[in-house]
Amino acid sequence: MEQNRNFEYLYGINPVNSLLIINVGNRKIYQILVSKNRVKDSRINNILTEAKKKNIEIVEVDPVQFDKISSEDVNSQGISARVSPYNYNDLEQYLNKEAGDKSKLVILDGITDVGNFGSIIRNCNAFGFEGIIISERRSVALNERVSKISAGALEEVKIFRAVNIVRTIKELKNKGFWIYGTTLDTTPEVKYLDDVNFTFPLVLVLGSEDRGIARLVSENCDIMISIRLSGRMQSLNVSVASGIILHKVQEQIERTK
Amino acid sequence: MEQNRNFEYLYGINPVNSLLIINVGNRKIYQILVSKNRVKDSRINNILTEAKKKNIEIVEVDPVQFDKISSEDVNSQGISARVSPYNYNDLEQYLNKEAGDKSKLVILDGITDVGNFGSIIRNCNAFGFEGIIISERRSVALNERVSKISAGALEEVKIFRAVNIVRTIKELKNKGFWIYGTTLDTTPEVKYLDDVNFTFPLVLVLGSEDRGIARLVSENCDIMISIRLSGRMQSLNVSVASGIILHKVQEQIERTK
Repeated sequence: MEQNRNFEYLYGINPVNSLLIINVGNRKIYQILVSKNRVKDSRINNILTEAKKKNIEIVEVDPVQFDKISSEDVNSQGISARVSPYNYNDLEQYLNKEAGDKSKLVILDGITDVGNFGSIIRNCNAFGFEGIIISERRSVALNERVSKISAGALEEVKIFRAVNIVRTIKELKNKGFWIYGTTLDTTPEVKYLDDVNFTFPLVLVLGSEDRGIARLVSENCDIMISIRLSGRMQSLNVSVASGIILHKVQEQIERTK
Repeated sequence: MEQNRNFEYLYGINPVNSLLIINVGNRKIYQILVSKNRVKDSRINNILTEAKKKNIEIVEVDPVQFDKISSEDVNSQGISARVSPYNYNDLEQYLNKEAGDKSKLVILDGITDVGNFGSIIRNCNAFGFEGIIISERRSVALNERVSKISAGALEEVKIFRAVNIVRTIKELKNKGFWIYGTTLDTTPEVKYLDDVNFTFPLVLVLGSEDRGIARLVSENCDIMISIRLSGRMQSLNVSVASGIILHKVQEQIERTK
């Protein structure tokens, strides 16, 4: 039996739904809590049906009580799950058993903003990227806010932790992955996104908004790419930038089908 | 002399900088406030130089005092401007005097989330879209949070208000604009973004995340477009979606250069 007695709550229709159906973080689901006045909502009802199939305890809670257990930071939509913490996925195992010719991963080098992190997870899910590697040192907690902002994608996209990003990049290269770094620079060795032909399997490396990706990390990338900007201000939100690049990767896959 | 005695504060290096240099909202700038311990920061220093050139009063404030006047919601970076409220731009005037063959605008139909709104303004600035039309009824306040999230782009992208979005779309059509609506639907009359050849001048219509754009609005669009998604979950954050489409429009402009 599992010895881990920690638990946390996830909130909202999409997160609880993804948890019941996918659950890549291998969370143990202890309870589903539902606000009594929401039981008849069809989407909530689907969740309860799924929970019953899986023999998960359902607790109907008085709306006032429900608000008390809810987080101030997220809109619970009257549904919550009490779960064990997210279990990070095992990168070795993924690379040896699951990764293939067309695999697509993201590395986040030093992103600490919860909103951006949640949004990037959602983008990965939307465009078929299988996983995200984050640094063990500067990682964001995979809490209910990340879960909610990701619209549940946190339970669908594998999150891996790396002790050392540079070493992990070298390992990925050995496994045949192409490493694409992103930058705001437009020096001659940087290619505009529109001119890149992506080769698979691939990893896209994204840095933090202030500092970008670390020099040692970018030196280990195969190709550095930049998004052409036409405004006076030369910057984009990192989750928007990731959406644009992931969409472009998917577009190229569609073109060659 | 201006009779408007209302004022508000903007915070942060990018917003104050854009305010001094562009200021499309025609704000009156009453004062620049700077935290004493930040005066030597080079970016802050550039701002102070610009303010001096424009004969704007600069007030150096004790760091503790500065924190007191700061907003809890935004990181002030030790710099603030006391300004008059944003003056919405005049759409008639823009259409008659400034719009051209290559003009690009966005219409936001019912977006109320401050974060998404700020991020969409930033995207418009990054990809050369000149303005955003919002509904007079359900508009977001152009406050210091929108300013900060837009990274200052609020002072660089024209914001217009429309009494009635459908009527405004008809007016834009009369002026030769092509109207592109966005949807999550994939019915036969909806085109995938990757298959669209944009014609200019154009307007991109974005809806709210929950409900998309109103039926009457979409019926008045020339072409409805959708972003191809490959994940299980069929949705994207609206600011990410806007970034992907605006980038695609710019890419097509670059290709035909």
